[in-house]
Amino acid sequence: MSPARARLLHQLQQRLPAGELSLNPRVLSQYAGDKWFAAHQPDAVARPRSTRSVSTILRFANRHQIPVTPRGAGHGYVGGCVPLRGGIVLSLERMNRILEINPDDFVAVVQPGVVTARLQAEVAMRGLYYPPDPASRAESFIGGNIATNAGGPRCLKYGVTRDYVLGLEVVLADGTVARLGGRTHKNKTGFDLHRLFVGSEGLLGVVTEATLKLLPLPPYRANLAIGFSSMRAAVRALHGILRAGFLPTALELADAFTLAAAYRRTGSERLRGCRAHLIVELDGQRQSVRDEIRSLQGIIRRQKPLFVEVGLGDRQCERIWKIRREFSYSLRDTGLTKLNEDIVVPRGRLEDLFAFAARLQKKHGLAVACFGHAGDGNIHTNVMVDFNQPGAKRRSRAALDELFRHVLAWGGSITGEHGIGIAKQRWWPLAVSTEVRNLHRKVKRALDPGGILNPGKFIG
Amino acid sequence: MSPARARLLHQLQQRLPAGELSLNPRVLSQYAGDKWFAAHQPDAVARPRSTRSVSTILRFANRHQIPVTPRGAGHGYVGGCVPLRGGIVLSLERMNRILEINPDDFVAVVQPGVVTARLQAEVAMRGLYYPPDPASRAESFIGGNIATNAGGPRCLKYGVTRDYVLGLEVVLADGTVARLGGRTHKNKTGFDLHRLFVGSEGLLGVVTEATLKLLPLPPYRANLAIGFSSMRAAVRALHGILRAGFLPTALELADAFTLAAAYRRTGSERLRGCRAHLIVELDGQRQSVRDEIRSLQGIIRRQKPLFVEVGLGDRQCERIWKIRREFSYSLRDTGLTKLNEDIVVPRGRLEDLFAFAARLQKKHGLAVACFGHAGDGNIHTNVMVDFNQPGAKRRSRAALDELFRHVLAWGGSITGEHGIGIAKQRWWPLAVSTEVRNLHRKVKRALDPGGILNPGKFIG
Repeated sequence: MSPARARLLHQLQQRLPAGELSLNPRVLSQYAGDKWFAAHQPDAVARPRSTRSVSTILRFANRHQIPVTPRGAGHGYVGGCVPLRGGIVLSLERMNRILEINPDDFVAVVQPGVVTARLQAEVAMRGLYYPPDPASRAESFIGGNIATNAGGPRCLKYGVTRDYVLGLEVVLADGTVARLGGRTHKNKTGFDLHRLFVGSEGLLGVVTEATLKLLPLPPYRANLAIGFSSMRAAVRALHGILRAGFLPTALELADAFTLAAAYRRTGSERLRGCRAHLIVELDGQRQSVRDEIRSLQGIIRRQKPLFVEVGLGDRQCERIWKIRREFSYSLRDTGLTKLNEDIVVPRGRLEDLFAFAARLQKKHGLAVACFGHAGDGNIHTNVMVDFNQPGAKRRSRAALDELFRHVLAWGGSITGEHGIGIAKQRWWPLAVSTEVRNLHRKVKRALDPGGILNPGKFIG
Repeated sequence: MSPARARLLHQLQQRLPAGELSLNPRVLSQYAGDKWFAAHQPDAVARPRSTRSVSTILRFANRHQIPVTPRGAGHGYVGGCVPLRGGIVLSLERMNRILEINPDDFVAVVQPGVVTARLQAEVAMRGLYYPPDPASRAESFIGGNIATNAGGPRCLKYGVTRDYVLGLEVVLADGTVARLGGRTHKNKTGFDLHRLFVGSEGLLGVVTEATLKLLPLPPYRANLAIGFSSMRAAVRALHGILRAGFLPTALELADAFTLAAAYRRTGSERLRGCRAHLIVELDGQRQSVRDEIRSLQGIIRRQKPLFVEVGLGDRQCERIWKIRREFSYSLRDTGLTKLNEDIVVPRGRLEDLFAFAARLQKKHGLAVACFGHAGDGNIHTNVMVDFNQPGAKRRSRAALDELFRHVLAWGGSITGEHGIGIAKQRWWPLAVSTEVRNLHRKVKRALDPGGILNPGKFIG
């Protein structure tokens, strides 16, 4: 850090309440990275307690051209909150209050540092429901969920974070505080500007308060976990369910590699010889859900499953999801590095994707494990690499290049949930046209002309 | 029109395929207005057949500073497509092809001039579902639905047009063609730019193609039409339904004034003495829906309804919706001018709104009829005016001022579906802060620096 910047940061420290800006190297190192590989030490870490402080920080940083990288819980998978150009990491961890839960209006008003699972538990106690369920929800912040437009299994039926954001208080790059949207479930007052900030990965502004839409809590849920002897049978079952007019809460698929690893970890005899695994979940009124789970079994039996496990009610459902979570752990048990790519294919391409992943595996001599939100076509494609092997880096990169090219040629997307961050930057120009990149730049320049917000990422 | 502009328009005519730009005054007068009161004759009407023509028109208009006002079916309620500053009306009526309906990917690709109901019928024949259902869907265009982010009764469960737009081809103000978003149901590739155009009322770009998300068609639906002796009982029934964990397809309320007018029109004895009318609709699997309709009746009986009418299956459901449509006609029968304000209140304020409307009525000596999408808090509040009466204009304006002030004070919105257009321009500064208006201007300037797109509306 240059002496000039150090001086400036000391100045800023004076303008903020005590303890809100840290220059302590031990603290700085804790804010250098997220769950991805990259890390870069910031010059300072701000942990403001109020919107006013966030505004002070941004106004100051904008005037003095100091980079500011907003940060939620640091649970991202693409390096989105890594402060690539140093400067200030702006952590929202201390703005963690649930300001209101209103069971008549069906809204919650929260600060960005509220942990997702905590909000879900609090609203559920009042018979309300906040559906978005990213895997990290026990630790992730609502603010981070908004910055990345977080999804999860339930998004098949319920949509993603964006669909629940009714209003935002945002601090713009120059320190201006803007309250966008509102608290009504419908609103056509001008442009849909608050949703422009949802998924903007900290490049357009800092969210300091969110008004979220809540739903009535469905009183009951039930699920099925089904083993198949082929991926084709599993995909046919999936299409059969949708064709019968069901829109399940979740439709999750796992492939043979994942299942073999899970078998090694759990020793569950069921998983032996199982080539595909499907979870279907329904929610709603108790009797309806129970009847419909029975109809689903009928549809599934036509594909000659190896086994069908039924989960009725919360406790049994959770048991089935626990197995699903084991899939992740068992991939970790392999000792390989997991490059988790959350690609999306049009739903009709699901089978093609699994077949392609198998070919990729052979061609590049790397294991590829696929599992995820099949209902959305959003399959987490994990390229498993032993970086101690010669040429592993080159081969993994070649495999990813080929994967992304194929997915794009099918009309798919290179990321369904995690965002671009640093991890996907290499494929950003492949994924979107020059015109669209220019449009991103125009919007970025209009909102952050000094380019201080999260610089070095996919734009500028 | 100045001779210079006339010369330019002739030049443009030469650059377009024959018949795509009309200067015929008879044609021009047909494109001067929509369903609201305002009208302004354009200098030319463009009816392009291709994206290329749209691009040619915008590039030319941008270079020569000619206003361009995009237009769908002209079914808006706020004057949104009135060419206030003359110039070119750009009608998308000839770009009316359904390019693809894909039952595996669950997407449709359409041109903007496709009529909403036509798309819905075509996808339904393939077991697919496009939920947004604005009242004008028999005539409205998908392009217009996108420009206004159209809603409708079913939006309670299914969300608005925005939630179904996966990708857009947009021609920007300078003629650049950008393909935004994609065809996957999830996509986190950069900013959510395509949705910025949804609801932008023709101020940011011209949509020339849309990729829409489809759902599995629910195989069955059923509904209830319930009469109550008080609005309080109706609102209690509504809250009871939500509290039991139901998220109905629709929850529609009508007030005493509306019902009295409907009684005069239909002579239906049922409506006599009825002070509130609620429609609840469910969809899903046949047996579940039938069971749940029975549970709903139990919830409703607690509020001592005057009558409960049950609609099972498509045909019976439509009969109940037909009565609902009579409400609109019967307000027209009064001979009064209906100022239809699609305000939204937080759901907990529903009863307050109806009570307030009754007070408004007395105070200003104007009838006020409320009905609409109560589930969303989106009540169409119709101030009924006889403009032949002395002071009617002044009184109606005062009543609207008071209405909007109250709605905003409750945390509501001045428009839930129709948009700002010209009709709500007067209340735009009341509804959003200076900071938010500035942000709108910044975005507008970034995308349309020449200000040629739909000028004279709520921005610039």
